Amino acid sequence: MANEQPAAKGTQSPHGASPGYVNSKDAHLKRLRRIEGQIRGLQRLVDSDTYCIDVLTQVSAATRALESFALGLLEEHLAHCVSEALTKGDEEAQAKVKEASAAIARLVRS
Amino acid sequence: MANEQPAAKGTQSPHGASPGYVNSKDAHLKRLRRIEGQIRGLQRLVDSDTYCIDVLTQVSAATRALESFALGLLEEHLAHCVSEALTKGDEEAQAKVKEASAAIARLVRS
Amino acid sequence: MANEQPAAKGTQSPHGASPGYVNSKDAHLKRLRRIEGQIRGLQRLVDSDTYCIDVLTQVSAATRALESFALGLLEEHLAHCVSEALTKGDEEAQAKVKEASAAIARLVRS
Amino acid sequence: MANEQPAAKGTQSPHGASPGYVNSKDAHLKRLRRIEGQIRGLQRLVDSDTYCIDVLTQVSAATRALESFALGLLEEHLAHCVSEALTKGDEEAQAKVKEASAAIARLVRS
Repeated sequence: MANEQPAAKGTQSPHGASPGYVNSKDAHLKRLRRIEGQIRGLQRLVDSDTYCIDVLTQVSAATRALESFALGLLEEHLAHCVSEALTKGDEEAQAKVKEASAAIARLVRS
Repeated sequence: MANEQPAAKGTQSPHGASPGYVNSKDAHLKRLRRIEGQIRGLQRLVDSDTYCIDVLTQVSAATRALESFALGLLEEHLAHCVSEALTKGDEEAQAKVKEASAAIARLVRS
Repeated sequence: MANEQPAAKGTQSPHGASPGYVNSKDAHLKRLRRIEGQIRGLQRLVDSDTYCIDVLTQVSAATRALESFALGLLEEHLAHCVSEALTKGDEEAQAKVKEASAAIARLVRS
Repeated sequence: MANEQPAAKGTQSPHGASPGYVNSKDAHLKRLRRIEGQIRGLQRLVDSDTYCIDVLTQVSAATRALESFALGLLEEHLAHCVSEALTKGDEEAQAKVKEASAAIARLVRS
């Protein structure tokens, strides 16, 4: 369904920089579609009255998959930030580090 | 899609007990459909090259929603275990506590 | 230092029930002393300018040790709650389940 | 006790770089001493048979304090990495990003 989106126009990042993950976009989308499948699997489990503990095991698996997706995205972003430091200077790069650190804190605490 | 499942037959829990969450099944399914929407939203964000940090914020929100779903399920399950202790005796209830504790550990560590 | 505490008097739980972990108190204290050692080890690492990533690895180990301590405590508490249901009735046991679930939520989210 | 360590020699980082957190060492040590106090407080709680749920609340607080310490350390490290990219070149900086990402993954999963 997401594929019906008119994304071809290539909406720019709201921060005016092309995102660091463009090259691996297909891999990210594939991962997200697999997670979507896991969530739909959870609905089937609940719908067929599956034993609670077995549902919880699948929730843990989906949570881990989401975390892995986030960690992959973050690694690319940090790599991108570091490269940008070389072209845009230290000050802008440090602002990005602050922003990335806040995102890391949200991940660690969620 | 989950709704096409022939779940009306009321598949029993593999452990021979009707799951503790039957009464709130609709609420759980509604919650999961909302999470599915969040995952599809993530696909749209990636597909339209949204800035990485903004994608990560949405990942944190989806992770928290999954955790809340799991915590709700778990609370009902524990309530069910405790009630069962009164009818099935302490030994069986203690086995359930062990099993639930393992599920909690997976949630805490994921 | 904790050992200098006059704990022999057996301060009662604020909720009027003897805690579910009394039997394994020594094991819990041993675990906490080991974690205290890990925190002191972290201080030595920082004090001697150890490489940040190596410090972070030890922080992850200490966090996991704290989580394991909490999970052990929680399992005993749940076992205790279930046993109590048999003597104190379902209503009181269900109140305990609510309380335990809130503690689990704090652990999962921290 | 950590202060008795002969740390004055200024042990170098094993990776040959002075750690990024040297300037804020005192703040980090102060934070760790407070966490050590929290762990000792936990021992007193267990030793005096405090109600399990109240002990768990304090464990969550200590875990969050450890996470905050880690996140602070990490932010400084990333800032340091980015600055280094300007002097040591992109290749070395990218190796650091890989290493930092692995540490972030350990934090998110612990």
